[in-house]
Amino acid sequence: MAQKTTIKEFEAVFPKLEAVLLEHANSYKLPKQALDWYKQSLQVNAIGGKCNRGMSVPDSVSMLLGRALTEDEYFKASTLGWMTELLQAFFLVSDDIMDSSITRRGKPCWYRTEGVGMIAINDAFMLEAAIYTLLKKFFRDHPRYVDLLELFHEVTYQTEIGQLCDLLTAPEETVDLDNFSMEKYRFIVVYKTAYYSFYLPVALSLYMLDVATPENLKQAEDILIPLGEYFQVQDDYLDNFGLPEHIGKIGTDIMDNKCSWLVNQALAIVTPEQRRVLEENYGRKDKAKEAVIKKLYDDLKLEQRYKDYEEKVVGDIRAMISNIDESHGLKKGVFEAFLAKIYKRSK
Amino acid sequence: MAQKTTIKEFEAVFPKLEAVLLEHANSYKLPKQALDWYKQSLQVNAIGGKCNRGMSVPDSVSMLLGRALTEDEYFKASTLGWMTELLQAFFLVSDDIMDSSITRRGKPCWYRTEGVGMIAINDAFMLEAAIYTLLKKFFRDHPRYVDLLELFHEVTYQTEIGQLCDLLTAPEETVDLDNFSMEKYRFIVVYKTAYYSFYLPVALSLYMLDVATPENLKQAEDILIPLGEYFQVQDDYLDNFGLPEHIGKIGTDIMDNKCSWLVNQALAIVTPEQRRVLEENYGRKDKAKEAVIKKLYDDLKLEQRYKDYEEKVVGDIRAMISNIDESHGLKKGVFEAFLAKIYKRSK
Ligand SMILES: [Mg+2]
Ligand SMILES: [Mg+2]
Ligand SMILES: [Mg+2]
Ligand SMILES: [Mg+2]
Ligand SMILES: [Mg+2]
Ligand SMILES: [Mg+2]
Repeated sequence: MAQKTTIKEFEAVFPKLEAVLLEHANSYKLPKQALDWYKQSLQVNAIGGKCNRGMSVPDSVSMLLGRALTEDEYFKASTLGWMTELLQAFFLVSDDIMDSSITRRGKPCWYRTEGVGMIAINDAFMLEAAIYTLLKKFFRDHPRYVDLLELFHEVTYQTEIGQLCDLLTAPEETVDLDNFSMEKYRFIVVYKTAYYSFYLPVALSLYMLDVATPENLKQAEDILIPLGEYFQVQDDYLDNFGLPEHIGKIGTDIMDNKCSWLVNQALAIVTPEQRRVLEENYGRKDKAKEAVIKKLYDDLKLEQRYKDYEEKVVGDIRAMISNIDESHGLKKGVFEAFLAKIYKRSK
Repeated sequence: MAQKTTIKEFEAVFPKLEAVLLEHANSYKLPKQALDWYKQSLQVNAIGGKCNRGMSVPDSVSMLLGRALTEDEYFKASTLGWMTELLQAFFLVSDDIMDSSITRRGKPCWYRTEGVGMIAINDAFMLEAAIYTLLKKFFRDHPRYVDLLELFHEVTYQTEIGQLCDLLTAPEETVDLDNFSMEKYRFIVVYKTAYYSFYLPVALSLYMLDVATPENLKQAEDILIPLGEYFQVQDDYLDNFGLPEHIGKIGTDIMDNKCSWLVNQALAIVTPEQRRVLEENYGRKDKAKEAVIKKLYDDLKLEQRYKDYEEKVVGDIRAMISNIDESHGLKKGVFEAFLAKIYKRSK
């Protein structure tokens, strides 16, 4: 999620999109109470994140063109970027309900806000619907309009199958390490995160500029999916080995029974005795048991294992980037920018 | 929701669609546990309803053509019909969570099924996503493909704003009759029910045959939305005045604090004294208080009021049907069939 645009510039686009969305609701004479509610949901759920995914659209478009964007180009690219943010908002609002989460972005989760509750499910739907309202408003005459619609449908579906697998693999109540495997881990990470966070913004950029040939899309996918996987592995690594003052929170993956890269690595190399320790201490809401797992991770040298993985995967990704065929409008810089943002990040 | 096709013929189409949906999931190598789950969700949530909405697509297409359908036409029309059933399944699974409902179609609601819980939210998303998978598979080369996509987007959104207004107007916990009004009632009914149940199947039929001119769509909408409103008013009437042995359940709208046609009619004509009776007894989970309201409805002669309404609205609808311009492919029979199914129904 490379960036040259600033969050300030990117956020300045949102009010125009919000006006379109409220005008659309208004065209149906939605009663005032409901209109105010929708506005509040957009404000709380669509805005306020880091917008890395959204901003990577104008940045990628600029990289593909090899120049700064005109005002109209910036608006169009950022509008596509905001659609990725709306898609994420749809997923986060509902994921927080499914995970019984408490806070999001330092505030109570939307469904835990006074008076909201399960109405949040319908609010999530309306965040998703906003994508198609904006696509119709701003891209109906674009030569790749159908592809944009299908791209959002497919990436939404991919994220949903990743989410389903995640929910079935690591249910909150039951700890069953037999459920975990690196294969399932990879499936979850690729579909639940990589497609919408990494592939989607670049594919949108390629469609916007009408350079989304099958070859360009394939090259982008081949690089961005491993990159997205690496990003999530890193996230799991930082949850345990990162500094709370860097990552801005205290990791809870062990206590939350997460199907994390670390536990999957551990499972692959434990002795029968260590496996027993894992079984007895993983996924419990108990600080002492968490400490036992942390100690086991140290004994298993998972920090070094992560560093080896990182060097290997980054080497592979760099090789793929250097092999990119730039003759049909794709640019290595798009991927270099993503990688630079991620490599050896500490937060 | 007119019918000449039978539920048996219509249901016989579903296995082919299910195979497409499972093959699509399979193409991503979805782990077996998740694939089985998805299949189960489709079986429980998409199938098993009365399929009035779905079956009205092949029936309308046949009426528009003025003849029986070929096998291919029947399959295509029923596929569109199944999409309306998938859309409904998406709404029902999530509505049951939002309403804390207990049963659906004589079984526990999906979210109350052992082991399901909030995963049902993601299952609802996947039911919605199935629509677009099927549209892409079977209608990508159709000249009105974009219109079909946009129609589903718009009707989905309309249903969501209707649902939002419903949730805000009649929250489960707080009884506030000031919140109710015939205006809000109409908004909720039109958007939450009429568009997807009545307009959608006919609009799909018109698009399928490529006779969806703006004029034909407008004529269909002008008739089907009042028809859908009448259908819901009737549903509210039957909840109180219908025979349990006909409607197959015991009405609970009064105890459930529903923003029903009856309570809105009552509110419009009560004396201050009767208003106090309404305030003190409506929306309470208490059989004695329910009986007080039922008595008040009788005192207010709401049964006769309903019958007067029915004669008036059916007269209006008949007049509109007789005025239909059939010169561009629309047929009066489509609407006559819908009306015949509904007029003076007792269940
Ligand atoms: Mg979560
Ligand atoms: Mg989750
Ligand atoms: Mg994490
Ligand atoms: Mg309900
Ligand atoms: Mg409801
Ligand atoms: Mg009812």
